[in-house]
Amino acid sequence: MIKSKVISIGDEILIGQVSNSNAFFISRELYSIGIYVKRIVTIPDREEDLLEELNDSIVNFNVTVITGGLGPTHDDKTKPVLVKFFKDELVEDKKVLEHIKKIFERRNIKIPESNFEQALVPRNSKVIWNNNGTAPGLWFEKEDRIVVALPGVPFEMIAMMKESVLPMILEKFKTKIDYVLKSRSLLTTGISESGLHELIGDIGEFIGDNKLAFLPSPKGVRLRIDVQSKNEASAKEEIKKVESELNKRAGKYIYGTDDDLLEEIVGELLVKKNLTLSAAESCTGGLLSSRITDVSGSSRYYLGGICSYSNDVKMKVLNVKEETIMKYGAVSEQTAKEMANGVRDILKSDIGISITGIAGPTGGTDEKPVGLIWIGYSDENKTFTRKFMLGNIRERNKIRSVQMALEILRKELI
Amino acid sequence: MIKSKVISIGDEILIGQVSNSNAFFISRELYSIGIYVKRIVTIPDREEDLLEELNDSIVNFNVTVITGGLGPTHDDKTKPVLVKFFKDELVEDKKVLEHIKKIFERRNIKIPESNFEQALVPRNSKVIWNNNGTAPGLWFEKEDRIVVALPGVPFEMIAMMKESVLPMILEKFKTKIDYVLKSRSLLTTGISESGLHELIGDIGEFIGDNKLAFLPSPKGVRLRIDVQSKNEASAKEEIKKVESELNKRAGKYIYGTDDDLLEEIVGELLVKKNLTLSAAESCTGGLLSSRITDVSGSSRYYLGGICSYSNDVKMKVLNVKEETIMKYGAVSEQTAKEMANGVRDILKSDIGISITGIAGPTGGTDEKPVGLIWIGYSDENKTFTRKFMLGNIRERNKIRSVQMALEILRKELI
Repeated sequence: MIKSKVISIGDEILIGQVSNSNAFFISRELYSIGIYVKRIVTIPDREEDLLEELNDSIVNFNVTVITGGLGPTHDDKTKPVLVKFFKDELVEDKKVLEHIKKIFERRNIKIPESNFEQALVPRNSKVIWNNNGTAPGLWFEKEDRIVVALPGVPFEMIAMMKESVLPMILEKFKTKIDYVLKSRSLLTTGISESGLHELIGDIGEFIGDNKLAFLPSPKGVRLRIDVQSKNEASAKEEIKKVESELNKRAGKYIYGTDDDLLEEIVGELLVKKNLTLSAAESCTGGLLSSRITDVSGSSRYYLGGICSYSNDVKMKVLNVKEETIMKYGAVSEQTAKEMANGVRDILKSDIGISITGIAGPTGGTDEKPVGLIWIGYSDENKTFTRKFMLGNIRERNKIRSVQMALEILRKELI
Repeated sequence: MIKSKVISIGDEILIGQVSNSNAFFISRELYSIGIYVKRIVTIPDREEDLLEELNDSIVNFNVTVITGGLGPTHDDKTKPVLVKFFKDELVEDKKVLEHIKKIFERRNIKIPESNFEQALVPRNSKVIWNNNGTAPGLWFEKEDRIVVALPGVPFEMIAMMKESVLPMILEKFKTKIDYVLKSRSLLTTGISESGLHELIGDIGEFIGDNKLAFLPSPKGVRLRIDVQSKNEASAKEEIKKVESELNKRAGKYIYGTDDDLLEEIVGELLVKKNLTLSAAESCTGGLLSSRITDVSGSSRYYLGGICSYSNDVKMKVLNVKEETIMKYGAVSEQTAKEMANGVRDILKSDIGISITGIAGPTGGTDEKPVGLIWIGYSDENKTFTRKFMLGNIRERNKIRSVQMALEILRKELI
C-alpha cells in the first residue's frame, strides 16, 4: 500500500481565514489513482515545523505533497527548507527564468528582484512546470520516497497536479499499485437520509467488502459506493453489483450519478423531446431560473421566467386572478396552478413550472407555517400541483424547493 | 502565548469526500478569543494515530480540540483511546442517558444498544452537553493542558463550541491571555486584486505591526486587517487607524465591512428611501433576483423580476423594440436600456435594473466576445448603462455581473 501525506503551509488556514480546499483536492486526486492519504497536516510557514514534518515523511510516507510557501517573499520558507533537508543547492534554471520574464512582459511590469529568485531551483530536484504563475513546483526523490512542493494558489496547484504530478507519481509507483480504487455516487432527492437508510435496509446483504456512505446536502442525499479491487474489470463488476441493488431498493429517488446536475438532466430531456420551458417563482426569487440557466446552451429550451414577488406582479404579469389570491392566498394550490398556467401562456412555452411558498425565517402562520411550499406544473395536457413541508432556514428552503421543482420536471419528462 | 492544536478524525476527509469545514470553524473561533492554532491534523479513526497525536498534544499544546469518532458504532475510537491515554474508566452518566432516551422517544424509535453506550463517560472528565445529538462531548484536564473531544457532525459541534467550549477555555486561561486579537474586513468590488494593490500603494507607511491580507473572490476583494494588541481599546484604535487609511486610498471601491452582504446594504437603502425595485435579466438568468430575495424581508421593496432569456420574451414581456434587437443585438447598450425601462414600467417599480450579456463559455463573436456585459439602470429621472468586460467562465461571469449590478444600485442610492 502506497502511503501519502499532504502538508499545507499557511497562517491563513490556521487562523480560519480560508478553508483548506487544496488538501481536499489533493486527497481526492491521489485517492482516484489508488493512493491513500493517511495524514493531512497544516502548519505555519516556519522552518522547524516543516523540518519536523519532512523527517516524519521520509520515514513513514511514500508520497508527500506540500502546498504553499513557494512565493517570492521572505515569508516563503518551503524552498530553502527543502534545500536544507535534502542537502541540495540552488542553481538558476534558464527555462523558468524565461517563463517568469514573459509573464511580467505580458503584464507590462518590470520584474521585481524577488521574482528573479524564483528561477533558482535545487540542483537535484526536478522542476514541475507552472504554466499559470511564477513559482515552479519541485519534485524530490530519495529512494522510494517522494516529496513534491507546489504553490498554494489553487488554480496553479490544480493544473500542476493534473498535468504533471499525478502522471509522474503513477509512473514512479506503477509496479507497486497492484489494486484499483473506484467510487461511484448515486444521487437521490426527495427523501431524507434516515428515510433512505430504512428503504435500503440491511446493506450487509449485498455490500461485501465494499463501502457505502450516505452524504446529505440540501439538494439531496448522495450515496457513495467505494470499492477496492484487484483490477479495473473486477472493480467495475463490484460497483455494478452494489449499484444495481441500490437501484432496485431506492431507484425511485435516484436522478443521476457522480457529477450529474439535475438541471442538466432536465435540459437534456427537454432537448430530446423538443420542448420549451418557462418558470414562475415567488419564494425562490429567481433561483430556479438561475439554476436552469447555469447550463450552457439552456437558451435552446428555456424561454425565461417571471419572479412574481409581489401579489401585484402575480396578478398583472402572470394573470393570477385577484379572487384566487383573496380567497386562497398567495401560497396555495390554486395560486401555484394559475402561476404555472400563466407563465406558460405568457411566455408561450410548452411547459410552465411554478413555485410559491413561505421561505422564512418569518412570515408563517398557524395555518401556513414557514417551510410550506406549493409547486405547480402545466403543459398542454395537464396541470397539477404538489405540496411540501420544509424547514425554517430560508437558504435551505430555496435550494430544496428548486430541487423539488426540477425533480418534478424530470419525472414528467422521462 | 496559548498554543492550540485541532485534530480531525475521519476517512471521509482523507479520501477527499468532504472538506474539513470543522477545523476551519474551530480555528476561527479559537483565534477570535486570542488563541493561535499552530497545527491542524487529520488522521484516520485508528488507535495508534490518535495516541501519537495525544502524546504530542500533552507535551506541546495547551489546548487540543478533537472532532469526530464519538459516534455509536465500533468504528468510533475517540472515547476508548482517550480513556486509555488518561488512564481513566467509563461510568454511566444518568443525565446523558435521560437525554439520549428522550431523543429516541421524540423520534418514536426504540434505542439501539449501541446508543446506550454513549451514556458511558470517563469518570474524571467533564461532560460537554450536546443539545442536538446523542454523543456527549468530553473535556480532559491535565495540569495546564486541555483536551476536548467533540462529535464530527458540524451543527452539533458548532453549538457545543459556542455554548460550552469557548467559555470554558476562556475561564481556564483568563490570566494567561494577556493580549487581544482583532480583525476587520473591508469589502471591495469592481477592482482587481492587483489594481487594489496599486491604489493602496506602500502599506509600510501605515500598517505598523499589524497585518493586511488581500483575499479575492468573484464578488470582489476582501481586505482583512489583523491586529494583536495589549487590550480591547488599543486593538480598536489600531484597526481604526489602518481602516481610515484604507478608506482614504480605496474608499471608492469599499461597499461594506466584515459579514456585510451587498444585497442587504442595497435593501436597507431602498427601505430608508422608501423606493421599490424590479429586475430584468438575460445572461444572469435570475441570479440577481435570487440574491435580492435572499434577504429576509425583501418583499418590502422588491416587486419581482423578469428573466427574459429569449428575444421573444424581451420583446413581448419587457417591450424591448424588435427594431432595437435587430439593429443593435440582444447584448447592447440600447437593449439594456430598454430592458431596465421596460421592467420598471411593467412591474410599476421606482427603479428598474437590467443585465444582458454573453456569459459563455460559447456564444461570443469578434465584435461581442464572451464576457461582454451591459447593465442598465432606470428611475424616474434618468436611464443609463454601463459596460463590463469579464472573463470566460460562465459561473464567475454570472456572479460578477450580479455584484456589479448591485454595486450600481448602491452607488445610486447613497
